[in-house]
Amino acid sequence: MDPGRFLTTFHSLTNIGWTEEGVMRLALSEYDIKVRKELIKLLSNIGVEIGVDDAGNIIGELGGKSDETIAVGSHMDSVPYGGKYDGFYGVMAGLELLRSIKERGIKYNHSITLVDFTNEEGARFQPSLLGSGLTTGVFDKNYVYSRRDKNNMSFEEALRVSGFMGDESNRLMYRKPKYYLELHIEQGPVLEEEGYQIGIPLGIAGLSIYEIVFKGQSNQAGPTPMNRRRDALVGASKFVTSVRDYAKRQENLRATVGILNVKPNVYNAIPREVRLTVDVRSVEKNKIDQAISELVEIAKRIADDERLEIEYKHLWTANPVSFSEEVITIIERACKELGMRYKLMYSWAGHDAQYMAKISKVGMIFIPSHLGISHAKEEFSSDEDMLNGLRVLEKTVELLDHQ
Amino acid sequence: MDPGRFLTTFHSLTNIGWTEEGVMRLALSEYDIKVRKELIKLLSNIGVEIGVDDAGNIIGELGGKSDETIAVGSHMDSVPYGGKYDGFYGVMAGLELLRSIKERGIKYNHSITLVDFTNEEGARFQPSLLGSGLTTGVFDKNYVYSRRDKNNMSFEEALRVSGFMGDESNRLMYRKPKYYLELHIEQGPVLEEEGYQIGIPLGIAGLSIYEIVFKGQSNQAGPTPMNRRRDALVGASKFVTSVRDYAKRQENLRATVGILNVKPNVYNAIPREVRLTVDVRSVEKNKIDQAISELVEIAKRIADDERLEIEYKHLWTANPVSFSEEVITIIERACKELGMRYKLMYSWAGHDAQYMAKISKVGMIFIPSHLGISHAKEEFSSDEDMLNGLRVLEKTVELLDHQ
Repeated sequence: MDPGRFLTTFHSLTNIGWTEEGVMRLALSEYDIKVRKELIKLLSNIGVEIGVDDAGNIIGELGGKSDETIAVGSHMDSVPYGGKYDGFYGVMAGLELLRSIKERGIKYNHSITLVDFTNEEGARFQPSLLGSGLTTGVFDKNYVYSRRDKNNMSFEEALRVSGFMGDESNRLMYRKPKYYLELHIEQGPVLEEEGYQIGIPLGIAGLSIYEIVFKGQSNQAGPTPMNRRRDALVGASKFVTSVRDYAKRQENLRATVGILNVKPNVYNAIPREVRLTVDVRSVEKNKIDQAISELVEIAKRIADDERLEIEYKHLWTANPVSFSEEVITIIERACKELGMRYKLMYSWAGHDAQYMAKISKVGMIFIPSHLGISHAKEEFSSDEDMLNGLRVLEKTVELLDHQ
Repeated sequence: MDPGRFLTTFHSLTNIGWTEEGVMRLALSEYDIKVRKELIKLLSNIGVEIGVDDAGNIIGELGGKSDETIAVGSHMDSVPYGGKYDGFYGVMAGLELLRSIKERGIKYNHSITLVDFTNEEGARFQPSLLGSGLTTGVFDKNYVYSRRDKNNMSFEEALRVSGFMGDESNRLMYRKPKYYLELHIEQGPVLEEEGYQIGIPLGIAGLSIYEIVFKGQSNQAGPTPMNRRRDALVGASKFVTSVRDYAKRQENLRATVGILNVKPNVYNAIPREVRLTVDVRSVEKNKIDQAISELVEIAKRIADDERLEIEYKHLWTANPVSFSEEVITIIERACKELGMRYKLMYSWAGHDAQYMAKISKVGMIFIPSHLGISHAKEEFSSDEDMLNGLRVLEKTVELLDHQ
């Protein structure tokens, strides 16, 4: 591979959609379309065969000696005001891999395929992973096409307008790549803090998301004595603190209250209703279930103490995913051969890899995220770390090609 | 007085603006205008002299033997989805007082004046008490006229459109009523719970409102381990609980976090910023100041513990107001003569009476609020309690008339 070429391409292309507040490259938006066209141009220059499927996923294939395929990929869309590395790094690394294989003029046993998945983030169209969900057969086409953005434009319409409406026959579920590799930033602080160059996820944590509503009684802030109040925000606040403290006491559990809305939200009124979400993650499904049931009990106890009512509703569950032991072993071997300090770990965020695991043997490669920051303009991974990841990806593909 | 006439008028008129969710009679809105026109019609029928000042306050005067005036009043505007009693009761009671004096054909020593103050609630135009603030000279005319509602309409424009733009010469600061009485629901649970029929406020609690911002670091909910987080919502939640617990430990102090807004407010993101308000009330100014400084210290300590930054800003202060000892004594005498069980207490909510105290000797009369609920459709005071209050008002005016 050519480190200079990779870094130049990465930094110039990820600036497409950059603003002072971060990257604005929402799925199938102006800047996502622009960067997709750049990718197609670069793939065409190498002379790989380009296909687009009916989710707009871009697939560039370099033919091998056999019918079998090794796919690498990630996504180029971003959250609003996101970072330059999330997803983009993996696609650019795959591009450099194809360029370098082509340049060296060697033919691999497997075809090597690069994939750019559409709408990984779920920031424009919910849920996330729409592109990988359709191409692997997890989601139904009608479901995917009917998702709407906040301006009420459907995914189908956005796809047509973008010019990236491709053909169902190009779906990866029909190509069935034998292996799928995704190179990604960690999005957490662990590798940096513990001094590792590479992380090898054993799988992706599952998650369960609940909505909890605390209901009390509103009144003017003055006339109700403190001991007579039924303040929904006091109950919700005790719960937020309890969720954090509970998750801190457990091993390998993460819990976050991300949304919290107060009614009536007026400075001189006791809050009558607070609606919040709690996002619980673990690599063990039973740990998630146990945490949810204990947190609901905690919420009930708080509601009793504060004379509030509560309602709770399950919103979304994703089960934990385990990656291929075969692929993990090969990535470890690649790291050892390259002398990289690596750590076996879990991915606590979702990735296209989790749906690709339905049709392929999957592995992921993580590189350190500075301070663990992601989905923000401060997201940063050093050029050196990016090159390390690229080397491990290249070596892993080489080793898998001989499996 | 005529109990049947009072109750019929009260219940039929306060239904103007009633919805299933409560009363929608925001200042100078369609239903406020409608009810104002009804009031003017009824005052004309009695034959009182009607004036409107340059804040749209309606003033109905029944001439007396001397030049001195006793004013009674309150307001007819409501908060969004408010109750039927808040403010409206006091205006209807004053109307019945005028009707009954006129009917009996007796001439009082003082002129008796009814006032309906504009925009008491501060729900459409902020701050509250705009009408009483202008008519007593507390607020400057340019300031009042430039207040804007959420549709960006100015108070001045709303006043012109409503047809209630009156003349500056009608301001109460020029008429200087000797006494001002305001009959109002308690808006708290104390009278009902302790079995009193009447409350006599010694004054109005002061308040100080601060905005506090907790700033942390956002990130995806998964990848950041629990002990590495700088979760602004966890800090803010500890503070909300601390504010309530602090106020509970003090005597005669009330503190409320009414507004709380989370950023980015996404289910799978650690909150990076929480902006909240804290409203602190007491009848002693030094108690408010002490509470604010201790709560700010608590916020700083929490921010340290959670590795957050905080900012805080003073938004608004109103000093405690003491009512006239002379008037309080007369109201007590009226209660005794009528055999009413009364309690000397404080008003913990603001009222037009607090600005009237700048130009008159002021007293207020409270009646019980069922369950202490106010500013909500469940707000309720019984007909019997309303008639009790009316009797005390009538008797107090009679007694003051001979002062």
